[in-house]
Amino acid sequence: MNRIRVAVNGYGVIGKRVADAVRLQEDMTLAGVADIVDDYRLQVAARAGLPVHAATPQAEAPMRAAGIAVAGGLSELLAQSDVVVDCTPKKVAAINKGVYEAAGVKAIFHGGESHALTGHSFVAQANYASALGRSSTRVVSCNTTSIVRTLGALRTAGLLKRARGTLIRRASDPWEAHADGIVNTVVPEKVIPSHQGPDARTVIPDLDVVTIAVKAAHNSSHLHTWWVELTRPATRDEVLAAFRAAPRIAFVRSSDGIVALNSTVELMSDLGRPRGDMWEVALWEDVLAVDGDQAYYTYQVFNQAIVIPETIDAIRALTGIETDPARSIAKTDASLGLRRDFLR
Amino acid sequence: MNRIRVAVNGYGVIGKRVADAVRLQEDMTLAGVADIVDDYRLQVAARAGLPVHAATPQAEAPMRAAGIAVAGGLSELLAQSDVVVDCTPKKVAAINKGVYEAAGVKAIFHGGESHALTGHSFVAQANYASALGRSSTRVVSCNTTSIVRTLGALRTAGLLKRARGTLIRRASDPWEAHADGIVNTVVPEKVIPSHQGPDARTVIPDLDVVTIAVKAAHNSSHLHTWWVELTRPATRDEVLAAFRAAPRIAFVRSSDGIVALNSTVELMSDLGRPRGDMWEVALWEDVLAVDGDQAYYTYQVFNQAIVIPETIDAIRALTGIETDPARSIAKTDASLGLRRDFLR
Amino acid sequence: MNRIRVAVNGYGVIGKRVADAVRLQEDMTLAGVADIVDDYRLQVAARAGLPVHAATPQAEAPMRAAGIAVAGGLSELLAQSDVVVDCTPKKVAAINKGVYEAAGVKAIFHGGESHALTGHSFVAQANYASALGRSSTRVVSCNTTSIVRTLGALRTAGLLKRARGTLIRRASDPWEAHADGIVNTVVPEKVIPSHQGPDARTVIPDLDVVTIAVKAAHNSSHLHTWWVELTRPATRDEVLAAFRAAPRIAFVRSSDGIVALNSTVELMSDLGRPRGDMWEVALWEDVLAVDGDQAYYTYQVFNQAIVIPETIDAIRALTGIETDPARSIAKTDASLGLRRDFLR
Amino acid sequence: MNRIRVAVNGYGVIGKRVADAVRLQEDMTLAGVADIVDDYRLQVAARAGLPVHAATPQAEAPMRAAGIAVAGGLSELLAQSDVVVDCTPKKVAAINKGVYEAAGVKAIFHGGESHALTGHSFVAQANYASALGRSSTRVVSCNTTSIVRTLGALRTAGLLKRARGTLIRRASDPWEAHADGIVNTVVPEKVIPSHQGPDARTVIPDLDVVTIAVKAAHNSSHLHTWWVELTRPATRDEVLAAFRAAPRIAFVRSSDGIVALNSTVELMSDLGRPRGDMWEVALWEDVLAVDGDQAYYTYQVFNQAIVIPETIDAIRALTGIETDPARSIAKTDASLGLRRDFLR
Repeated sequence: MNRIRVAVNGYGVIGKRVADAVRLQEDMTLAGVADIVDDYRLQVAARAGLPVHAATPQAEAPMRAAGIAVAGGLSELLAQSDVVVDCTPKKVAAINKGVYEAAGVKAIFHGGESHALTGHSFVAQANYASALGRSSTRVVSCNTTSIVRTLGALRTAGLLKRARGTLIRRASDPWEAHADGIVNTVVPEKVIPSHQGPDARTVIPDLDVVTIAVKAAHNSSHLHTWWVELTRPATRDEVLAAFRAAPRIAFVRSSDGIVALNSTVELMSDLGRPRGDMWEVALWEDVLAVDGDQAYYTYQVFNQAIVIPETIDAIRALTGIETDPARSIAKTDASLGLRRDFLR
Repeated sequence: MNRIRVAVNGYGVIGKRVADAVRLQEDMTLAGVADIVDDYRLQVAARAGLPVHAATPQAEAPMRAAGIAVAGGLSELLAQSDVVVDCTPKKVAAINKGVYEAAGVKAIFHGGESHALTGHSFVAQANYASALGRSSTRVVSCNTTSIVRTLGALRTAGLLKRARGTLIRRASDPWEAHADGIVNTVVPEKVIPSHQGPDARTVIPDLDVVTIAVKAAHNSSHLHTWWVELTRPATRDEVLAAFRAAPRIAFVRSSDGIVALNSTVELMSDLGRPRGDMWEVALWEDVLAVDGDQAYYTYQVFNQAIVIPETIDAIRALTGIETDPARSIAKTDASLGLRRDFLR
Repeated sequence: MNRIRVAVNGYGVIGKRVADAVRLQEDMTLAGVADIVDDYRLQVAARAGLPVHAATPQAEAPMRAAGIAVAGGLSELLAQSDVVVDCTPKKVAAINKGVYEAAGVKAIFHGGESHALTGHSFVAQANYASALGRSSTRVVSCNTTSIVRTLGALRTAGLLKRARGTLIRRASDPWEAHADGIVNTVVPEKVIPSHQGPDARTVIPDLDVVTIAVKAAHNSSHLHTWWVELTRPATRDEVLAAFRAAPRIAFVRSSDGIVALNSTVELMSDLGRPRGDMWEVALWEDVLAVDGDQAYYTYQVFNQAIVIPETIDAIRALTGIETDPARSIAKTDASLGLRRDFLR
Repeated sequence: MNRIRVAVNGYGVIGKRVADAVRLQEDMTLAGVADIVDDYRLQVAARAGLPVHAATPQAEAPMRAAGIAVAGGLSELLAQSDVVVDCTPKKVAAINKGVYEAAGVKAIFHGGESHALTGHSFVAQANYASALGRSSTRVVSCNTTSIVRTLGALRTAGLLKRARGTLIRRASDPWEAHADGIVNTVVPEKVIPSHQGPDARTVIPDLDVVTIAVKAAHNSSHLHTWWVELTRPATRDEVLAAFRAAPRIAFVRSSDGIVALNSTVELMSDLGRPRGDMWEVALWEDVLAVDGDQAYYTYQVFNQAIVIPETIDAIRALTGIETDPARSIAKTDASLGLRRDFLR
């Protein structure tokens, strides 16, 4: 079978990781990446041999001046691609959609865009089948992905009645030096529920979930705290088993010294993970508490990486090169090296 | 009537504020403060005319070397006092209790100590009467005080069924430069429920409340997010009215530009508050959401100041100089200048 | 003598402090303040009785909607004023200058503007006399003010040959929740020398000074580290005496527990300073080292307040109500309560 | 030739990197690592197949309980080693030295220890030859290593007269969650000069260097700002050429988007560096300024990794398996992949 040719438009925090992951798949090839930036990020990509395209005509000259061997424009890239993964900043994607359609290329968008843009929102374990053959989908945001994974796990086990979560978000991405940062404060969102809870219902419509979100003064990842009402009194082991049965959730334990968001950052580094990435939801096994029909737990969402496996699966779903969700998930997870436990 | 003579043992973040507040009361006089430290904090106190005592014999010489006019030892201070407010670090208080008893002085401890130390835990609006005439009590911690104030308000209004909260705590106090700080992380507590929820039941025994606590990388105060199940479907106005009817809760609004923990810090400064203190729980009026029998809200706990009015009331309760809870609360709040709304 | 009528245009971090300080002067009266914002900051000002003006016509309606009793527009304010202190954001001031001139009102700008805007830059102790009777001046920035105060002190004592400083700036102002913050990094300025060294020469033209500036992940104030080559070998006491002889420099000591930027923040609070302000340069007396003709020291610049006394003096200089620099400085410092040592 | 057998005692931030680097050398083999900790860090090491030893008898049982296959005690490890690299916390090393001597094993200590411990302090490019055949040496600290590299480069080029630097240190290491952090402040060291300047003279005795050190509220690495007086007026290109001629200094440029400490962290990740390590001093080429005989520059010290190549060289020097400094440096740098420029 021919490999699917994948374009990545937008080579930022998500785009660079999608490009890395595509190159690890046996059924895909990276057609190239496009961006409008000419700084170190694109320079490294070009010097590493990636075909770098100028996403706009104006971007080409500065890119060449920065020593980047520009392979062409966005249209040339799309002409060589079966599917494009849009990793551009919020609002840009809506404009791009028309460009992709005109080029006859299937398109994957990310969680910064609205569900309405594509009419389909994607998390592999929840609704892969419904994306088969579509011309486009939206991989939901990092936080929403984590919610669908974890509440989806409880739902699949028949345990989920309703859930209320607090999301303690990172203030900015680790590389950012000039924008979005906050200092010595916590900023609550002005509206309850925050968008992540409702957004999860674009994937699993009948979820009873409400989220409250705040932004804290760190940049290393998100932390969620959850209260869940179960459908019946259950044991701690039953709840753990429900999480263990679902993909892309990995247990961590404070008894192993994993005591904070930065612990897993160090752990991923110790494990030799590329870019220190954690694609799994890291759920604290020994913090999880169950009291009758009430469950409480916390987990970490490494926002830069968690949607990468979903994006790879979305490529397979749209293009139909793999019709079995479980097999796509298995291929993706094996290629990246996802684990169900980092230490056991 | 004679003024109650109050000693403050431990002149740190809480102790200095208790001393300030005592001096504002018409029915109290500050007998003096005691500490073992000789740095700027005690130097300022001494130069401001406060009677500074050496809490241990060893502390006296360095204090004098630092220019502090030492008024005596702890025993001299206790001999001139009717009640002592213990603001020493955790664990020290248990030892002090015997000293206070031997001196025949009533004693107030703070939330770092266990309920068992005194057998009585205090929040003025909830159980003032039960502290009348006791020899000692414990003013509960800042977070627990806020929980009793807010859930107590809903309970008084007959609206509270159960509550689940997440506490995003500050990492250290603002003055600390060498200890306890965290950098670029969030640290979840290892046990759910965190101690604050159960601790609230030392004041209101039948509360159905569970708390999850984390520590974030800021030092300016705590933020709580809450989900509450009401006893019945209610309107948003009913819930707001319940909070408005209770003392020491003040509304803030994001529409007024109060959008984060540091907003109220600036607001207190603009209001000319001493030390920039906010004694009230600041509850976001326009963020509060009610959906049937479900209520959601966030509030801020300014940990350095919130227990100060409770401590003043506890002095009145133990000594019996005021037997009416509402009158003590009114006196305290008028002396400090507490408000129900900072801008309306 | 009639009091000078002062308008404050821009009621932010600097503007609110200028307004406070003007009201403390016996020879000035606050005509009013103007801004375009209607949030808590202006609401507090209005409720405290300050005449609040709408700086633009569009600002008036939202201000009134927020409950602010608008006293008029900017032109009405200028018509009632002898001098206006412009505390608007960078770039806005250049436009305002024409408005002030047309209104026949003298004007004071701040350090965010260029020297060319007024052709005169002001630090009271250095060049008060040259501002007498001018129609406008620029009070230099917080960092530049500190440089002129300290290097000016050494120069006055005949000790200054040349100076090289590193400025560790705060990332944002304490109240800011949505902009300018940085997380877990240090950002060096792209050009050496940074602008502050050359800017000091707009006040003292022959200074041999070079500065390197970086931005660190805190919001509490700036820290400077300096190496100075003296004109001759000197003793530590000679250097300290030079600093002691100059106004608006106060000594602090690590031996008193003043060990970091946040120590003085607590100290100002302990001293009961309004808004916790430190108008003085806080120079660490016991860290200062002198080795032959080499001197090394560090000091703290509380950026929100340090230019306030200079601004008050600039009002007197422009209007000529006080022609003697030393007497103006003495009046200002007495009204605010400046000290040469916070603990001795 | 037989490979040198290397033990690593202390498997923390430095120890784990030394172990990684040893395994990349063709003339070395890792005999094993020892520690007293049983958390995720040692668990990962053991599961990766490293021989993990219990550094104390008491540590063995908890290690085994955590699933670590303990290979033996420290004495067993030393018996199988030619040289031990001590990466234990400060103060422990002094005790260990006797143990190593008794075992007849050569030993390398790190910069937390005093020069007096071994009587020899090591930076490869400066004094490799003097360490040949010694029984022990001390690889100086990250900051001192960077000073010797950069000032050594200028000295070798005959350009260095004297240097004055400010060191803006990180508050804690990235993995730390419970200690040493600071929040919203900058902490200056109480003594000028800070120890790093004098410490550089343990390697190059006649350096005229003074350092001032402060600790800022980040954990990602150190930033240094320098003023250097040259022996003669020079051009910018001459100064750059001097740095370019020395090993282990790499140029970065703000024009490439490397604008802050966290930029290079992202860059190392983009380059696929293990653990995101930067072993080179990253010196901003386009920020460096030269004015006559005055040079000014800033550079970044990635404290977790910069001493690793020095440690590998120190192993060769002590054991004499390579007597030529330049050849040892070349071997080390090739094995790790050091670069002189990350983007050109």
